[in-house]
Amino acid sequence: MITREPIGHVRSSRSDLSDDNWGGVTARIEPDESLPAESLAGIEAFSHAEVVYHFDRVPDSEVERGARHPRGNTAWPKVGIFAQRRKGRPNRPGATIVEIVGRAGRVLTVTGPDAIDGTPVLDIKPVMAELLPRTPVRQPAWSHELMRNYWE
Amino acid sequence: MITREPIGHVRSSRSDLSDDNWGGVTARIEPDESLPAESLAGIEAFSHAEVVYHFDRVPDSEVERGARHPRGNTAWPKVGIFAQRRKGRPNRPGATIVEIVGRAGRVLTVTGPDAIDGTPVLDIKPVMAELLPRTPVRQPAWSHELMRNYWE
Repeated sequence: MITREPIGHVRSSRSDLSDDNWGGVTARIEPDESLPAESLAGIEAFSHAEVVYHFDRVPDSEVERGARHPRGNTAWPKVGIFAQRRKGRPNRPGATIVEIVGRAGRVLTVTGPDAIDGTPVLDIKPVMAELLPRTPVRQPAWSHELMRNYWE
Repeated sequence: MITREPIGHVRSSRSDLSDDNWGGVTARIEPDESLPAESLAGIEAFSHAEVVYHFDRVPDSEVERGARHPRGNTAWPKVGIFAQRRKGRPNRPGATIVEIVGRAGRVLTVTGPDAIDGTPVLDIKPVMAELLPRTPVRQPAWSHELMRNYWE
């Protein structure tokens, strides 16, 4: 068993757990007082960060360990939980690339976090181009359809 | 406190913890027997996956919570732990995009995991182009220098 402590929380005006329309969301990520403010020093030199969450609002009964149709849509294939990004998954981790708006002391302002107000944050990592896919990204048609309104 | 169980482990010929030269590494990621093989079904339709690790070999004494020079190099600025990707960080999570080579039942073969043999895996997520940076990636010069030999 692995135990973890949140390093901070998402502060956002959004508290709606639905799957789409995350495009307009600006949020703050605030490290806990137990962490020094210098833990974020220099992050503003990066345009993007990856935020690792814990989706604490997902109940155990919603955790899929096998396969299911993404979003319950039977027009899409039944695929394994590790072939989709459904929040209800073992360990319930989220990992999302956000755009950095700015930093003021220990408060990081970002756009694009797909997590609601109060979501515990486990880590913040700067995005480096060298760690993005270095070969063309290929993905099934259903995943493009699923993402169509995500950032609307 | 958040508790988690590994969903599997990295199986790799590499057991060297140094920071560079991860380019040639091919590895297997094997979900535990407690998970159904169908948990990976359909992942082969994606070219890339993101693997979330727990860097269990990093001792508490190596965990930075404030700021330090990346890799101890004083030619680079002292930056916060959340402005660098050092393994010794709160909660010790890794998140790495790998290229999918193929799947055989419950075994996923990938290239590019920067984790050594036996590293616990907390999650596997498919990479979708819609979730990569949608604006140009900007990063400081030191981070390009740091990454220069990463994939050699």
